[in-house]
Amino acid sequence: MNHFTFYSPTLFAFGDGEEQHTGALVKRFGGTKVLLVYGSGSVKRNGAYAAVTGSLQKAGIPFAELSGIQANPRSGKVYEGIELVRREGCDFLLALGGGSVIDTAKAIGFGAGYHGDFWDFFTGEAAIETTLPVGVVLTIAAAGSEGSDSCVITQEEGNLKWGCPKTDLIRPKFAVLNPRFTCSLPAYQIACGAVDMLAHICERYFTNTPDVGLTDRLCEALLKTILDAAPKAVALPEDTASHADLMWAGMLAHNNLCGTGRVQDWASHQIEHELSAFYDCAHGAGLAVVLPAWMDYVCGHDPMRFARFAVNVFGCEMNFARPETTAREGIARLRDFFRALGMPTTLSEVGGNPADIPAMVAHRSEKPGGFPFGNFVPVTPADMEAILRLTAG
Amino acid sequence: MNHFTFYSPTLFAFGDGEEQHTGALVKRFGGTKVLLVYGSGSVKRNGAYAAVTGSLQKAGIPFAELSGIQANPRSGKVYEGIELVRREGCDFLLALGGGSVIDTAKAIGFGAGYHGDFWDFFTGEAAIETTLPVGVVLTIAAAGSEGSDSCVITQEEGNLKWGCPKTDLIRPKFAVLNPRFTCSLPAYQIACGAVDMLAHICERYFTNTPDVGLTDRLCEALLKTILDAAPKAVALPEDTASHADLMWAGMLAHNNLCGTGRVQDWASHQIEHELSAFYDCAHGAGLAVVLPAWMDYVCGHDPMRFARFAVNVFGCEMNFARPETTAREGIARLRDFFRALGMPTTLSEVGGNPADIPAMVAHRSEKPGGFPFGNFVPVTPADMEAILRLTAG
Repeated sequence: MNHFTFYSPTLFAFGDGEEQHTGALVKRFGGTKVLLVYGSGSVKRNGAYAAVTGSLQKAGIPFAELSGIQANPRSGKVYEGIELVRREGCDFLLALGGGSVIDTAKAIGFGAGYHGDFWDFFTGEAAIETTLPVGVVLTIAAAGSEGSDSCVITQEEGNLKWGCPKTDLIRPKFAVLNPRFTCSLPAYQIACGAVDMLAHICERYFTNTPDVGLTDRLCEALLKTILDAAPKAVALPEDTASHADLMWAGMLAHNNLCGTGRVQDWASHQIEHELSAFYDCAHGAGLAVVLPAWMDYVCGHDPMRFARFAVNVFGCEMNFARPETTAREGIARLRDFFRALGMPTTLSEVGGNPADIPAMVAHRSEKPGGFPFGNFVPVTPADMEAILRLTAG
Repeated sequence: MNHFTFYSPTLFAFGDGEEQHTGALVKRFGGTKVLLVYGSGSVKRNGAYAAVTGSLQKAGIPFAELSGIQANPRSGKVYEGIELVRREGCDFLLALGGGSVIDTAKAIGFGAGYHGDFWDFFTGEAAIETTLPVGVVLTIAAAGSEGSDSCVITQEEGNLKWGCPKTDLIRPKFAVLNPRFTCSLPAYQIACGAVDMLAHICERYFTNTPDVGLTDRLCEALLKTILDAAPKAVALPEDTASHADLMWAGMLAHNNLCGTGRVQDWASHQIEHELSAFYDCAHGAGLAVVLPAWMDYVCGHDPMRFARFAVNVFGCEMNFARPETTAREGIARLRDFFRALGMPTTLSEVGGNPADIPAMVAHRSEKPGGFPFGNFVPVTPADMEAILRLTAG
């Protein structure tokens, strides 16, 4: 186990109806005027918007609104939000939605107090030292941004989908988690969320750090929970127990509890960012394509770790004579699981074209840090191209 | 899964040498004058005291000292600490040690700003609304107080070993976790710590709340880690990996991550408090006596849960025809595990006498709330007597 700092100072209020305490929570964490950030009409249809704005009014907290945030959130809405915060004098960001809405709120939070372009924090020209506080009312279980230290935005100029450097400063002050809001989501979106969570754990699980049995087991506990809950949640809108499992698992998959003391990988996320930048596919859908391909490509680096994954997560029988057989079986089971959830597993299924692969690799190389990326196996341009070729089906 | 609030805003700095940042951490969390609380000379022998005081000096933070805290911490040292804080003008408590030292610091923290007797917070005559901040440099992996919302003190007048009502207000601001400090502890103390952690998880694991698969699996992940690490840590002072596992597991066993969304039991702890109040035995030793006896007594209430414990934690083979056979095997394996660690499992081994059992039951009844206690199976005076009789060996 390596040295680590773990600081997850977010207050989580979990359960049906907890959104009624939103106003009190904003007050508790010092907010006096809120910018309410949300996406489309779904939060109006499922009652979340009415409950949250009612709670703010009851607490006597005025608010401005920024709506229309879409999946793969874009820089335009961040600039718009920064303007709004300054004009309206907001001192608290309240995200009502999923990862895209939360990440937009986070970026507005650290961009609003900065004299230059908020994108400077993504390019490394500036470092985040202060931010407006962010609160969350979660309506989509997926990204884990409600408890995380990360934020991913697509800069429209250049179509760059990048994460800002991770910092505990941008962890939300509170997150209200009502699983009922996720029950009415389309099956495809629930499935995308489950893939995103699984990927967040896998990015931490596949490591070269020795002596990490505790976090290995925590990762496996979460993975098994998601494998168990996701098919039920997708098929049964009324099964609140599985929706609740997914919602809490999504947070725990990405607040870095599972990553403490271990070097993490994150190559699959880096590759997926190019997929969604090129084809604007859902992040979870892109990950369902990339993650098994990445696994196939790097399995030989540590077959025993992949065999552990197969046995402890999927319940495969260990082939002690040929561990790599078991390892490959685990990867196949993951791909089958994604397919059963209705997820794509090939490039063409997300609207991709193998002819674009060199352009995606070239686009990636423009990012600071460029190549190689990933820590389990460092990925070079040739590796990235090979992994993407494996997705061509 | 039930409604819950989870708020664990403690910063954890984990690894060898992290104690050198203690002064900077005190400053970060607003401390300008520290009361340093510790036990006996062990922190001077293992270098922790020198490193921590050196770090405070380097950060320019003056400090007063309160030493001599013992296991099963007593009210006298809390009164002494409150006096010291007031006289010296300290605004930050720094606990250097294990659970006893941390709980003493917590009690000083909420007692110092209160005009009356700090014990009022334990009897329910007053409610904790404010406290001085507490920081921790952990040298014993056991109680999990470094991340918990609880505090247990023995009031010398009446020999009452009680916990104060749980509140997030008393969670430490930071905790430095250097597993090297635990390597030099006596084997008996390491074993006591492991039992305490196991018990903290079992108190949460045995529940009647349905649909708690995620936290069940998290509990099992921690239990398996402790079963794996404790024998190595006890036998091999130099095996830093197992000491590191135990240290991080001890925190996670009691910051309530494993208890989110489920009704918890805590009967074994209540019974043990009488054992250590009567015989001043180590808390972990008392738990090793009480916990398997409690399990034997309540197993019939839900044999399938105990069978799950046996299969998923101890790797027992499930007897599908007679699940209670498997359930009983798990309890026997736990008792064997405690014995192999050198722990007592009978009343006489902790200096107890069956003749005292009625007096222990009577003493318990003086506590506010009295009987019944425990939620998996409510424990009446007759039940408590029967459980203690099972420990008579």
